[in-house]
Amino acid sequence: MPTVREASFDLFREQGMTTMFGNPGSTELPMLADFPSDFRYVLGLQEAVVVGMADGYAQASGRTTVANLHTAPGVGNAMGAIFNAQANHSPLLITAGQQARAQITLQANLTNRDAIRMPHPLVKWSYEPARAEDVPLALAHGAHLAGLPPKGPVFVSLPMDDWYAEVDEADAREAITRRVDGRAVADPAAVRVLADRLDAAANPVMIAGPDIDASDAWQDAIALAERQRLPVWATPAPGGGRLGFPENHPNYRGVLPPAIGPVGQTLEGHDLILVVGSSVFPYYPYIPGPLLPDGAKLVAITSDPDEAARAPMGDALVADVKLTLAALLEDLPESTRPAPEPNQGPQEIPPSDPLNPSTVHTALAEVFPEDGIVVLESPTSTLALRNQMRLSRPGSYYFAAGGGLGFGLAASVGVQLAQPDRPVVCVIGEGSVQYAVSAFWSAVAYKTPITFLVVRNEEYGILKWFAEVEQVEGAPGLDLPKLDVAAIAEGYGIAAHRVKDRDEVRDALSRSIASSQPELVEVPVAPGMALF
Amino acid sequence: MPTVREASFDLFREQGMTTMFGNPGSTELPMLADFPSDFRYVLGLQEAVVVGMADGYAQASGRTTVANLHTAPGVGNAMGAIFNAQANHSPLLITAGQQARAQITLQANLTNRDAIRMPHPLVKWSYEPARAEDVPLALAHGAHLAGLPPKGPVFVSLPMDDWYAEVDEADAREAITRRVDGRAVADPAAVRVLADRLDAAANPVMIAGPDIDASDAWQDAIALAERQRLPVWATPAPGGGRLGFPENHPNYRGVLPPAIGPVGQTLEGHDLILVVGSSVFPYYPYIPGPLLPDGAKLVAITSDPDEAARAPMGDALVADVKLTLAALLEDLPESTRPAPEPNQGPQEIPPSDPLNPSTVHTALAEVFPEDGIVVLESPTSTLALRNQMRLSRPGSYYFAAGGGLGFGLAASVGVQLAQPDRPVVCVIGEGSVQYAVSAFWSAVAYKTPITFLVVRNEEYGILKWFAEVEQVEGAPGLDLPKLDVAAIAEGYGIAAHRVKDRDEVRDALSRSIASSQPELVEVPVAPGMALF
Repeated sequence: MPTVREASFDLFREQGMTTMFGNPGSTELPMLADFPSDFRYVLGLQEAVVVGMADGYAQASGRTTVANLHTAPGVGNAMGAIFNAQANHSPLLITAGQQARAQITLQANLTNRDAIRMPHPLVKWSYEPARAEDVPLALAHGAHLAGLPPKGPVFVSLPMDDWYAEVDEADAREAITRRVDGRAVADPAAVRVLADRLDAAANPVMIAGPDIDASDAWQDAIALAERQRLPVWATPAPGGGRLGFPENHPNYRGVLPPAIGPVGQTLEGHDLILVVGSSVFPYYPYIPGPLLPDGAKLVAITSDPDEAARAPMGDALVADVKLTLAALLEDLPESTRPAPEPNQGPQEIPPSDPLNPSTVHTALAEVFPEDGIVVLESPTSTLALRNQMRLSRPGSYYFAAGGGLGFGLAASVGVQLAQPDRPVVCVIGEGSVQYAVSAFWSAVAYKTPITFLVVRNEEYGILKWFAEVEQVEGAPGLDLPKLDVAAIAEGYGIAAHRVKDRDEVRDALSRSIASSQPELVEVPVAPGMALF
Repeated sequence: MPTVREASFDLFREQGMTTMFGNPGSTELPMLADFPSDFRYVLGLQEAVVVGMADGYAQASGRTTVANLHTAPGVGNAMGAIFNAQANHSPLLITAGQQARAQITLQANLTNRDAIRMPHPLVKWSYEPARAEDVPLALAHGAHLAGLPPKGPVFVSLPMDDWYAEVDEADAREAITRRVDGRAVADPAAVRVLADRLDAAANPVMIAGPDIDASDAWQDAIALAERQRLPVWATPAPGGGRLGFPENHPNYRGVLPPAIGPVGQTLEGHDLILVVGSSVFPYYPYIPGPLLPDGAKLVAITSDPDEAARAPMGDALVADVKLTLAALLEDLPESTRPAPEPNQGPQEIPPSDPLNPSTVHTALAEVFPEDGIVVLESPTSTLALRNQMRLSRPGSYYFAAGGGLGFGLAASVGVQLAQPDRPVVCVIGEGSVQYAVSAFWSAVAYKTPITFLVVRNEEYGILKWFAEVEQVEGAPGLDLPKLDVAAIAEGYGIAAHRVKDRDEVRDALSRSIASSQPELVEVPVAPGMALF
């Protein structure tokens, strides 16, 4: 009879989950024993890094991914990253070792005392099997559920002595080989109603969200916008973990502002607002106002029941984004509305010294390869990058949708491992680096040829901007003097380039992108927010 | 009428909580506005560092300490450190900002969606006030509860718009000025029964735990051991977050082994086992055997009801450790038992190249100042340090009782800030550093003259040792090549010294300890565990 370990690794193999991220402890050793040679174990030196890498890998590969953590303190260190994975709809099977069953009730050291409650409220499901022989079925349950809509992290706690138990071979085969498919198209009658509303609208608009990219629906979204002559806004940046529409497309308008009043104002004049693959809406600062322009109606298509339920306005269809867009297209004629005015492209940025972050992003845009991928965590220049680079290929942008820092640096390693042939540029602030800084070690250890572009402003710039919005003065802790990320990265073995003017930035980026090893380009930038 | 912010800072001031640790985000800015000049804000660059520093500060100062985090992702990043604080019985008032009340129900970005559940199961109490004007009372509740036995972390979630509300001045004064004292002596009748059992025992023994130090009971523990001629063991190292007995005392025997069978064997021959200020017991590897030697009885004194309730054997008194030891001493005569054989002192360590970690610790012992403090996170050499250094002053040793990594580096900064006149040496492995590496920045920014002693073995040595114990072969992720902590620390602005032989180690440590700035001494050591 196979052991729990053999059956579990068969499950992972059968389900295409052979790249595993982890930080091991004693409670995980029995799981990792005799690690099979067709699997890859990617070591992170802190659990926020482990889950961040797994999140990037899961999103960029489209596969449910295992992140293996060390009992309670390991899960604890990862909780911020699990928050991000939940917001990103990232399918993760998170496992953690647990004390031997004989020592759980007496709470020996490193017992995960309340293992099931530990990762709440950030996971879809959390479980510890009641018996050793149930471990493969529990892992199958978790793996399937993580990948079902809404995709997201699940957690299974695994007592360390369970791996040696034997399981019934026939039962195990049943559990291991199941296929579960959760993609479903919205009710054809509801799709027809939406098609009629859209076609009958005088001035409809589309809002493109991250789940267009996650469901591989770019072509459908473009076809819909073109056939119906829809102007298209990207969902507000805080929720835009991925891009759902080419930002150089003539119909593209820009990124919606992230507050209630300004969203309403921006959408004025539209009578029907179609939101695709986004929450409604990822607001951040509280600027009150009408939720919708006068007379406007809103319909959202989302695969996340909670996004549909919690929205403060509008109707929603809960179904797979791609399948439902495809069904909608079948019901929709070519519109006779005039095409939207073609978008103007990026604003010109006047020269400055030190460089404005926007200028840095123009330099990046100049050398950015066709198939490049940006992983972004530079809160002061998110909009500048979006506006200047106009990324326009699927799977070319990853950002922490929930607003938690620590995703970017770690996720870039996972994205590069999932897409080894596409150049990855991680654009990040020196403050953001610190939430997952040891990811530099993994970048080197796994020979990922990432380019890290550090925009260094010596402050938490977005907080100074918020302080102005919130009329706050005299708050401590907003400056970051002497935080020399280039030197720290060199300490981790990364070649770092310190550059100051735009030509140097462009050349250093060009060389780093072409290099086959991870390199870092550090640019001092002007303080403050870069919005354009 | 005072605002919520004014009343809350008056509370902190009145309760002696004027040093605050934090990593700010937009949701915390209104709290931090016009930060009062008699307060100190200590910035950490990742939340695991913030809580680790606060934990060290709280333990070394004896004061309940505020750690201010950034809504859900900030609390998430800190959860591993909160696990440690709980295990350490560290009194922390953890607060986090929350979205504006108007945007919580629609779950705007950075809403802490299930704020109260978020830090469970690691806190004693978790709360979000129902109205803005209740914030000062909620903070008072949390501050008092954190400091009551069993000490530990509590959590209060604070909507960002609450700080401007006004509170009733008289009500606020009542909440702000309360004094709550939870130290209580065990029932005199129960103390008398214990005194009689102890005096009547043929061969009693004492096990000293961390809460002797936390309750300032060293002199009582020493008096008890001497008056009753008790041999004294330290509680197993995984639970020994602090020292409860001088390790150079003639009655001191050593550190108990951490597994069931070996503890029983070690205590053979004793008929009464008195455990003071410890759980019974912080076991780690599962090595079965009788819980107690044949015929032995056990009594524990602890301030933690859960420690008392969950122990698998023995009786317990739940009360303040110091007061109860003092009461016990009043009831106890000088024993006529012979004094225990005086302990032998440290084992000699044969020379080696590279150095054995034990040899490194002999060098540290040679130059360690009388009033020095060790903060320890070197899993391969915990026992070597204990055995070689024989630390023998109260408040001179801090270690993560729960076994979670990431405490040591961060806590050393907090300990140094709480004890600015005592030299702090943080002894740490290069793997352990990575769980809270950005603490180096805070060490520099706040001019803490810590000596970081890095024992570099290029592996997770304790895991290789556990793999042998668990008969595991072929596990990945146990080696740490090219992890150059000295270079990383230099990147953060710390002067680093790379030394190899024992005299160099001693001299570098001597100079670093005397220096008024943080310095790091890195020593390559032989792989494997150092137990003596």
